[in-house]
Amino acid sequence: MRDEKIIVTGDIISHHARTKLQERGVEIDAIAEIVYDLQHPYAPNLTMVECVESVDAVLVKREIQHAILVGIELDVLAEEGRLSEPLLSLITGDESLFGIDETIALGSVFGFGSIAVTTFGYLDKEKTGIIRKLDRSTDQVNTFLDDLVCSIAANASARLAHRLRDRDEAETKVVIRKPEDEELIG
Amino acid sequence: MRDEKIIVTGDIISHHARTKLQERGVEIDAIAEIVYDLQHPYAPNLTMVECVESVDAVLVKREIQHAILVGIELDVLAEEGRLSEPLLSLITGDESLFGIDETIALGSVFGFGSIAVTTFGYLDKEKTGIIRKLDRSTDQVNTFLDDLVCSIAANASARLAHRLRDRDEAETKVVIRKPEDEELIG
Amino acid sequence: MRDEKIIVTGDIISHHARTKLQERGVEIDAIAEIVYDLQHPYAPNLTMVECVESVDAVLVKREIQHAILVGIELDVLAEEGRLSEPLLSLITGDESLFGIDETIALGSVFGFGSIAVTTFGYLDKEKTGIIRKLDRSTDQVNTFLDDLVCSIAANASARLAHRLRDRDEAETKVVIRKPEDEELIG
Amino acid sequence: MRDEKIIVTGDIISHHARTKLQERGVEIDAIAEIVYDLQHPYAPNLTMVECVESVDAVLVKREIQHAILVGIELDVLAEEGRLSEPLLSLITGDESLFGIDETIALGSVFGFGSIAVTTFGYLDKEKTGIIRKLDRSTDQVNTFLDDLVCSIAANASARLAHRLRDRDEAETKVVIRKPEDEELIG
Repeated sequence: MRDEKIIVTGDIISHHARTKLQERGVEIDAIAEIVYDLQHPYAPNLTMVECVESVDAVLVKREIQHAILVGIELDVLAEEGRLSEPLLSLITGDESLFGIDETIALGSVFGFGSIAVTTFGYLDKEKTGIIRKLDRSTDQVNTFLDDLVCSIAANASARLAHRLRDRDEAETKVVIRKPEDEELIG
Repeated sequence: MRDEKIIVTGDIISHHARTKLQERGVEIDAIAEIVYDLQHPYAPNLTMVECVESVDAVLVKREIQHAILVGIELDVLAEEGRLSEPLLSLITGDESLFGIDETIALGSVFGFGSIAVTTFGYLDKEKTGIIRKLDRSTDQVNTFLDDLVCSIAANASARLAHRLRDRDEAETKVVIRKPEDEELIG
Repeated sequence: MRDEKIIVTGDIISHHARTKLQERGVEIDAIAEIVYDLQHPYAPNLTMVECVESVDAVLVKREIQHAILVGIELDVLAEEGRLSEPLLSLITGDESLFGIDETIALGSVFGFGSIAVTTFGYLDKEKTGIIRKLDRSTDQVNTFLDDLVCSIAANASARLAHRLRDRDEAETKVVIRKPEDEELIG
Repeated sequence: MRDEKIIVTGDIISHHARTKLQERGVEIDAIAEIVYDLQHPYAPNLTMVECVESVDAVLVKREIQHAILVGIELDVLAEEGRLSEPLLSLITGDESLFGIDETIALGSVFGFGSIAVTTFGYLDKEKTGIIRKLDRSTDQVNTFLDDLVCSIAANASARLAHRLRDRDEAETKVVIRKPEDEELIG
């Protein structure tokens, strides 16, 4: 370690978080597909481009990036047998009552509101798309990664729901400001 | 108001929380049925009696009782038009981006661990049994109540999962303490 | 109730949330002062203008606005004796084990990360500035309001900490991208 | 790895969690002292024995034990330079915007209610007793450990507050059931 303190900038962290996701087999598009499936029923005109963009926006957040770095590190260390027991067995066995993977993922879900939390819970149980693939993989330990993907998808989905609502409101604003509604305002 | 301070004991609160649930059409058995459906796949010998008992145990918790009292009060006040605008419209309309109902329910879910949180999210989206009935009711406002039932069922389910695991462990304990496992212990 | 559905826009909700805060005696400046006291030690050049701006930005969030509307409504209803027992006594007595006020406030704190959560806990216990004034008021019931103010101040403070860091990074970026740091990136 | 699946029992996990705390310099008594300082003002007859007992009860919880195992493992790996960059620098530098340590600790705080959450926030900022010692240590990396101790102390303190209240209620129950209070019940 050198004497001078290294400042780890957001740029570096962001770069690493994205790279690690990819190295572990998770492409942005695969997460965006989950988001599309979740939001399409409520927004028929939704495009995949908007979903990718929402996933990208979620990945800009520091807390998500930190969660990704910690979670994938623990998965990899477990895979390589470089954790002490009994933690190693808890993680490699994806022990059903071990909840730190969900705790870490949940920590970054709270940032996107209660809708993100319930969506996270739903995805964690239903395990659609890439989440199921990760869950069933026998090649690598994904104890933390599958929850992280649930978290990113839930956040991107909640973010999109709020955005779509803002757009709707902007369009309907003129209509609702009728005099009979005024009592709502004053 | 009299001068002497009234101490509201746990007994009184517990009695009211249970009574209000019933008055709003939610029987313990209906919640226990959701718990049974959730846990039965993992515990084939599970009985409805155990599920009812787990719901009962959850309802003993102060934070759950408080959440029930606040949530049902807001539902009833909204139903009777006795809230100010725009809160009244947000609650009677069960506005999709209004999340205080989920926040209050979630507050009492955290107490039962991360499994309870994900189960809550799942129930909130799937709306099985009595939850769906409440969600679709046109007779009464259930904006808070349906989330509260999700919360109670999720908690009772997580509590049961932990209990069943403890029982399993008690039975297998002799077996696993083989010498080759000792390194795990020391 | 008219047949046509009223869409409660964000504008209306935002307007009401701010107005209610003011009606209950909470000015933006008073919250900004708490933010200043919290962040000043880490950022000597911090101005009150930046703190006010951060409080303003927090008040734009839907979840905060909803929390304010629900919390103040319950305070006012309790004050006017228009809640049923035993909830009325729990709220007017600010019963120490009643935690729904904290739960609602916490729900909107999570959105600003774990630093906001710990700052909220600190403010909730230390009760500085306007928070103490609300806590000691004998004129009105502030059971929910004092927690809401803790929440807004904690959020504005955490938001500022992140912004200040981003600014620092922008300034130091050139310096740290020295060749010997490159291994961090690749 | 042998073919047969190793069931990691609660006994083993509990034993390891306690041992690791001790190995890293955290005695139960040191945590109990923080609990005593927090609760003594509200309960003058409180004894250290009760505080130790409450800390013990908290350490029985699976989620706490798991949090301890994960947190201390990350501290030790960071200390030994066995984490990849930039995570290593984030943890060894106890980077102020890195919040996964707080997220993991918070995950086990939620289980003890909103009072535990606010107490955790307070301890995390005030850093009394052993927490300050850990925070200032230059011998070992305690990025996760100091938050874990905040969490255990906050939980034991909240648990005690609830117990003391239950005891008070049991003693006063006869008194409050006066006829004029009956309206609270029916």
